[in-house]
Amino acid sequence: MKKTKRLSRKRRGLGETGVLERIEEIAPRIEIPSSGVRLGIGDDAAVFRGTPSCDQILTCDWFLEGSHFLRDKHPADAVGWKCLARAVSDVAAMGGVPRCFLLSLALPATHTGVWLDQFLGGLRRAAKRFGCALAGGDTTRNENILINVTVVGETRTGRAILRCGARPGDALCVSGRLGEAELGLRLIRNSKHRPKRHDPRLRKHLYPEPRLALGRWLAEKRLPSAMMDLSDGLSTDLPRLCSLSGVGARIAAGKIPTVPIPKRGRSPDNDPLEMGIDGGDDYELLFTVPRKKWKHLPRSFHGLPITAIGEITEARALLLVEEAGRPRPLPNLGWDPFRKPL
Amino acid sequence: MKKTKRLSRKRRGLGETGVLERIEEIAPRIEIPSSGVRLGIGDDAAVFRGTPSCDQILTCDWFLEGSHFLRDKHPADAVGWKCLARAVSDVAAMGGVPRCFLLSLALPATHTGVWLDQFLGGLRRAAKRFGCALAGGDTTRNENILINVTVVGETRTGRAILRCGARPGDALCVSGRLGEAELGLRLIRNSKHRPKRHDPRLRKHLYPEPRLALGRWLAEKRLPSAMMDLSDGLSTDLPRLCSLSGVGARIAAGKIPTVPIPKRGRSPDNDPLEMGIDGGDDYELLFTVPRKKWKHLPRSFHGLPITAIGEITEARALLLVEEAGRPRPLPNLGWDPFRKPL
Repeated sequence: MKKTKRLSRKRRGLGETGVLERIEEIAPRIEIPSSGVRLGIGDDAAVFRGTPSCDQILTCDWFLEGSHFLRDKHPADAVGWKCLARAVSDVAAMGGVPRCFLLSLALPATHTGVWLDQFLGGLRRAAKRFGCALAGGDTTRNENILINVTVVGETRTGRAILRCGARPGDALCVSGRLGEAELGLRLIRNSKHRPKRHDPRLRKHLYPEPRLALGRWLAEKRLPSAMMDLSDGLSTDLPRLCSLSGVGARIAAGKIPTVPIPKRGRSPDNDPLEMGIDGGDDYELLFTVPRKKWKHLPRSFHGLPITAIGEITEARALLLVEEAGRPRPLPNLGWDPFRKPL
Repeated sequence: MKKTKRLSRKRRGLGETGVLERIEEIAPRIEIPSSGVRLGIGDDAAVFRGTPSCDQILTCDWFLEGSHFLRDKHPADAVGWKCLARAVSDVAAMGGVPRCFLLSLALPATHTGVWLDQFLGGLRRAAKRFGCALAGGDTTRNENILINVTVVGETRTGRAILRCGARPGDALCVSGRLGEAELGLRLIRNSKHRPKRHDPRLRKHLYPEPRLALGRWLAEKRLPSAMMDLSDGLSTDLPRLCSLSGVGARIAAGKIPTVPIPKRGRSPDNDPLEMGIDGGDDYELLFTVPRKKWKHLPRSFHGLPITAIGEITEARALLLVEEAGRPRPLPNLGWDPFRKPL
């Protein structure tokens, strides 16, 4: 009986009002006290009241079928989680606290049933985890699944951490491990089957965790001179930070916290160093710390490793120093949608 | 020489960084004093400082090739104007002032040259006209042109005008003329040629004007009990306002300010009343005014007509009263992307 109902709903598809109603159903379940949302879904726009003595952080992120996820390989629940996690990660990268988000969703009529339910389930879990309330959005029909998420966060006035403050001599640090999400992506891409949602090797690719607590703590302690999140890979993101700061960097290859893969399991397709340098989607924090503040930086934060992987230099080149070799230039080989689709 | 350069750029296409750089080039040219934007494009997120004693209005809008515009029929410049105008119209509908916006743009590599330039030209003109600064966004590659715009606006604390305040006896009013944008769309759809940008019959479809000044004035005078913008057509939008207010409405067909079409030029394809009732994209304001405030409502505002087209009723039906006939139910036949693509 239930199955028939679901199938028939799936075939019929919901109108725009129906899709909106389904989203409205989940909205109250992800209300967050003190999110600042005074008026949510249903009107022309949402109304948000910012915290006095705070700046608002504004960010938006595409999450598109074919570019960022594959309809037949990525579980709808993970799509819902990740579309919000990626945008929230930009707030973490400024040292901010997420408050609310807008969801723009374009769906084929065939995906307004079970797929939408599972998508909203993942989204709701993420919203609760990150403390980010659903304030509004826009829905429409499209042959491909299109998602765009706007997140509003806050930092204390004038205290957002920018990309432009790195200075020569600063330590270059990262949180967590790099390349783990890329490994998960490769496993999914090379598998003929739909992945198992709970496979631990896929966790970081399917359900990334924006480093909110660490970002906020670093900002409160005013440790970083510059910070950003690693979304497109170290070799693509580091040049952005260096360019805005007018500096270069020198990275010790041996210090990069890569994914442990036993030697006999390695192949050109899963080289830990290459994945750590060029793999995207890790959503770890990349930040620089002035020399005089090094002593205040812990080795880990609530179990999350913090690793100094190199140093900011005056010379504007980006160099990778391998254990047994001379420094070599670090080519920008991370994710660029205009060059390398998924 | 110039032509060759353009062509070669068009063929080669820009990488993501190149597209971002082109957008960054125009950003400073649409800086708006007092927009509240403290940090614009280039970092993980934008930083916005709200005006004290104001609420923030948050809204986002899809603008998709195939659903909302046609790549070969709509000039890139009009696409740039309209994607912002539509989202800003939601701020007008709350009685707010737009402050800044985020642009999410997904383009085929073939459209990162001339098309992008013209698109950004239209966007820049709109941003200046509406006083809305470009604060940030996201770009990616896609086979179809995808646009999503988030606008942040402001109203005085607690003074946003909502859809839910209409009460029986209130006058139901609209600004401007209804159906004009629909007429323009039909002319474009039925023509084999690319439309002439400056054809006055297409102006409202290509370059809609959100009713910012009127919305703000109405909010300042606290005249409307409820307000929204007409984006999907009167017959689709009015039920939304009535449903949230828990009321019905009775409209006098003869009062609806339609597009003047000489009788001999009329056809079933351009019936003014049908276009005025079901046509979308007008971005006029629909609002209700309590009886005791009627006398404060002018017949026009800076040349823009204001027309009372009916009355709010306790009975929750929506009725259309034609000159020589009995009231008949008003079916919801406006734009629903899940039913009727462009």
